[in-house]
Amino acid sequence: MIINGKEIAESIYADLAVQREGITHPIKLGIIVGTNDPVIESFVRIKTRIAARLGVEIVREELPERVATTSDVVAALARLVPLVDGIIVQLPLPVQIDTDALLASIPSEKDVDGISATPRVRPPVAEAVAEIIRHECLEVCDKQAVVVGSGRLVGGPCAILLQELGAQVTVINKGESLDPLKDADIVVLGAGNPGFVKPDMLKDGVVLIDAGTSESAGKVVGDADPACAQKASVFTPVPGGVGPIAVAMLFKNLFALAGVKSE
Amino acid sequence: MIINGKEIAESIYADLAVQREGITHPIKLGIIVGTNDPVIESFVRIKTRIAARLGVEIVREELPERVATTSDVVAALARLVPLVDGIIVQLPLPVQIDTDALLASIPSEKDVDGISATPRVRPPVAEAVAEIIRHECLEVCDKQAVVVGSGRLVGGPCAILLQELGAQVTVINKGESLDPLKDADIVVLGAGNPGFVKPDMLKDGVVLIDAGTSESAGKVVGDADPACAQKASVFTPVPGGVGPIAVAMLFKNLFALAGVKSE
Repeated sequence: MIINGKEIAESIYADLAVQREGITHPIKLGIIVGTNDPVIESFVRIKTRIAARLGVEIVREELPERVATTSDVVAALARLVPLVDGIIVQLPLPVQIDTDALLASIPSEKDVDGISATPRVRPPVAEAVAEIIRHECLEVCDKQAVVVGSGRLVGGPCAILLQELGAQVTVINKGESLDPLKDADIVVLGAGNPGFVKPDMLKDGVVLIDAGTSESAGKVVGDADPACAQKASVFTPVPGGVGPIAVAMLFKNLFALAGVKSE
Repeated sequence: MIINGKEIAESIYADLAVQREGITHPIKLGIIVGTNDPVIESFVRIKTRIAARLGVEIVREELPERVATTSDVVAALARLVPLVDGIIVQLPLPVQIDTDALLASIPSEKDVDGISATPRVRPPVAEAVAEIIRHECLEVCDKQAVVVGSGRLVGGPCAILLQELGAQVTVINKGESLDPLKDADIVVLGAGNPGFVKPDMLKDGVVLIDAGTSESAGKVVGDADPACAQKASVFTPVPGGVGPIAVAMLFKNLFALAGVKSE
């Protein structure tokens, strides 16, 4: 079973179009972009296209990559906050910027990515994984789950989600052995390391959710070698799997925060 | 299978005792009590006992039941807010009080019951139902679920939870036909109507979660006739089922809000 992320995303957009009619004020989404990278740029382009479709205005703040300081970004954030209903700080930021401090300063009521100190929504990729689990009625409770990576947007929140659903969760960090993959019933990949998971590392019938994205030879590719699809009972391709659903969930988060504000 | 709520609650308290050590400031829980009722009083007594055990100080505000106005309660709330880490407005309030307006004025970062306009935590009873589902690895996705009642603390949030877990959810409001119970794989009761659900209304093997509490002849009783236990594959008794778990989840919510504040 290959998950069709675009189809699942479309059903979410159908719900959001109905919700949009119930929110009478304009909805604005602020995006702070700090690095010049083709993968990041493709993410921003997709969000901008979906925003236009849903009647959401994008307010974009570009940082000068080499010279931007933490206080520049904090100032950009402070300028955006009163203007928009939700804010994305497109990660990664340039290395000289204190990402933790910056994220902590996003007001939770505008934090559509769920990465501030006290988020009100779950990060979109974790929501996308939850949506796939629901959509396919996947059994999670008491299953062995392995999450590769422990980033803010993917690995961390996906590990929490799977724990909440009752799975036994092992997290594999960078440089650690990949052996636990062999026994996993459910694998979530969020390393951003092109195609490093091969079929022979996996158990037959694994649920393989690939939320890793990186660029290889000008294309966006996942953490799993596409050949893994043959070994998996459920497989999410990159592109076209988790990605489109996560974008839809980002706008679902935005509408939730914007709708609350309009009450 | 009869759920032992006290046992599940104890395992949550073991986790909370560890968490408590990580929070260095005193933790205070405010409770506003507006009605003089033996069931409400027993709820407050239990919370007070658990608070003492977990090193949480209770700050109680008593309202004069007959003469309290909405603005009296709003004022009591405003007095409590700066003094405590979390606030419970013990429902129901006296009839002359505008409960909606009052709940909307609880700051979300102190709202341990998850009933303000923009809650950060789920209501404790819904968290208790989630905990039972996890603990027993109950299958929910694609199952027929019926929730009886649509109150803020039980029916409403339990319906949302079951939907999020992929169930087909039917809500039965007061006065509506109980026929849908016959086909339900999962039933959550939150009507507060003593023992009105009888075994012959239910499907064999139903998961019956009784979150209804009311007083009958001086005792706290549930919505289900205890004879339903024989027909159910999973049954939560009253007292001793959902109740103790919900109290533990209330303190889990409090620690989550208090911990965030202490960072």
